[in-house]
Amino acid sequence: MARAAGSGPVRDTPSVVELLARGRSLCTPPLRSAVARLAAPMDTVAAYHFGWIDRDGRPAAGDGGKAVRPALALLSAEAAGAPAEYGVPGGVSVELVHNFSLLHDDLMDGDEFRRHRATAWTVFGPAQAILVGDALATLGTEVLLDAAVSGKATAADAARAVRLITTATRKLIDGQAQDLSFEHRDVVTVEECLEMEGNKTGALLAASAAVGAVLAGADDRVSDALQRYGHHLGLAFQAVDDLLGIWGATEVTGKPHWGDLRQRKKSLPVAAALAEGGEASRLLAEQLADPKGRGEESEPVLAARAALIEQAGGRAWTQDEARRQYETALAALDEVPMDRTVREHFVALAEFVVVRER
Amino acid sequence: MARAAGSGPVRDTPSVVELLARGRSLCTPPLRSAVARLAAPMDTVAAYHFGWIDRDGRPAAGDGGKAVRPALALLSAEAAGAPAEYGVPGGVSVELVHNFSLLHDDLMDGDEFRRHRATAWTVFGPAQAILVGDALATLGTEVLLDAAVSGKATAADAARAVRLITTATRKLIDGQAQDLSFEHRDVVTVEECLEMEGNKTGALLAASAAVGAVLAGADDRVSDALQRYGHHLGLAFQAVDDLLGIWGATEVTGKPHWGDLRQRKKSLPVAAALAEGGEASRLLAEQLADPKGRGEESEPVLAARAALIEQAGGRAWTQDEARRQYETALAALDEVPMDRTVREHFVALAEFVVVRER
Repeated sequence: MARAAGSGPVRDTPSVVELLARGRSLCTPPLRSAVARLAAPMDTVAAYHFGWIDRDGRPAAGDGGKAVRPALALLSAEAAGAPAEYGVPGGVSVELVHNFSLLHDDLMDGDEFRRHRATAWTVFGPAQAILVGDALATLGTEVLLDAAVSGKATAADAARAVRLITTATRKLIDGQAQDLSFEHRDVVTVEECLEMEGNKTGALLAASAAVGAVLAGADDRVSDALQRYGHHLGLAFQAVDDLLGIWGATEVTGKPHWGDLRQRKKSLPVAAALAEGGEASRLLAEQLADPKGRGEESEPVLAARAALIEQAGGRAWTQDEARRQYETALAALDEVPMDRTVREHFVALAEFVVVRER
Repeated sequence: MARAAGSGPVRDTPSVVELLARGRSLCTPPLRSAVARLAAPMDTVAAYHFGWIDRDGRPAAGDGGKAVRPALALLSAEAAGAPAEYGVPGGVSVELVHNFSLLHDDLMDGDEFRRHRATAWTVFGPAQAILVGDALATLGTEVLLDAAVSGKATAADAARAVRLITTATRKLIDGQAQDLSFEHRDVVTVEECLEMEGNKTGALLAASAAVGAVLAGADDRVSDALQRYGHHLGLAFQAVDDLLGIWGATEVTGKPHWGDLRQRKKSLPVAAALAEGGEASRLLAEQLADPKGRGEESEPVLAARAALIEQAGGRAWTQDEARRQYETALAALDEVPMDRTVREHFVALAEFVVVRER
């Protein structure tokens, strides 16, 4: 269903499981150390958000997310010819920044569930979600500066990594601002949607795919190419996410059925369908411009709307777009001379991100 | 009334007006450029918060705050023997971080007025206040990194400045977490209160007083002494602020009369009064432990509570504490060999911060 990209049958990629596991096993201990530095009760709120404890403070083997970003950070160190360990401060940093944005976005968007659990703001209140988000973002810079102090990177490379992550963080925030502004509009163009998704999702994946290389001393040419890989991978991921947001099953996504349609979210399939201009497209535009029933639509109404988007070509266009972005991401890898296995791992991770059932 | 520190009559200090004006005139243009980089509508929300426009978008000659932090940043460059201009990226950075914390704190605390104006979250909604706060914090790092790119600082000094500001930002967040946690308690010790205020107010003033010197290449000894000056100045400032929060007039503070008492805020006068242990102290403790009427107390009830705090010595202790912190701040200046005029300016700014009517 969400097999938007890749050609032919999906290969089993056991190496992806190992790559993600390696990212978690190398990055989670320093991530937990960083979080433990926070003043109470922020350490508890953060530990809940990351899935390390439940709402009563008991240890939990929770779903802390796939941790694709740390895995990319380690690979990017290897792309620069360094051991994966050189990427660890980068992996910790991008995971902190990613989770800062989740904490704040969930609150701003009023989302009550993430990763099949109640979101932090619903458990600990809005103030704690704001505060802990702020703290994680700041820690995201601190762990990179610490790398220079502990000798895990030169001061110059740590500073370059800080710049990389800071720029990505600001794009992330710009993307969320654009996403929020879309809520007040009936129509959003495909270009606007792509720009928003490039900021909101592409920027941090771009930084993730380059930060390990930067910490390992790679030059700007290598960093730029790896960032392009991550940026287009992010756009491919987001296209698939937009498809799942409409046609994904709750048990797979952990989000309410038809959630994006109920919120009238301006995602890629909707923008593409509105741009098509045929009869289904016009009907869809009429429905979305109608303030009546906003957020109150019944399941059959939402199912019919999903069908309209599909008839107007929004689903197929987004599937094609996911494939295009995926291929552009892989093409960027060709600009970086790297170990063949490392390249295969980048490709496998890209396939995992784009061709996913969950 | 708020003349908590200083001995003898307060001297007129026209130079303070000039110092603050210099800080604003050098730092506001690059501050506005930085804010203009934000995606719409964040640029508008930030411009409103800074007092540059009113809620309808019309230019305003608003009260953007005293801008003590930029003035300190410029002075600190001069303390290192450099022109004031070397401190500009630091002044812009600390003003951005300070305003990030104001935007988020106002929302977390539910404060509806600041600087005699409606707070940003009441005008633009909570989501925009969260988002713009995030953006300002990130810009606070970016402007320091930009200083290295434009040659206004060496890469190494810019990185040291980033570390200084990042550490201060995390302490700021720790302080706000502590402040929020106090709300759920009846009693807070003087030590806990001082630690919270050191984080919430002292840390960023410490960074402000050192960041210009760091950007100008001063060594750690100079930076440490200037940070101590700023830290104790912050504690002195906060002691005065706590006095004004109880005994200050609305027309002076821009905040509701008896505001801190109505919120049962655990400020220094209250903590000191509770520690005293006499009859007034015990009566105060009883009132604060009584959940009845919380936030609903009438003016006479609050006036009587203020009198209890004063009887238990909370007002006098806090006045003494402000003076002690002020003197410790000035003593730290003696550790840095600096131009006599620059030292006088540091002293004048300290006096202005501590001995204030507004």
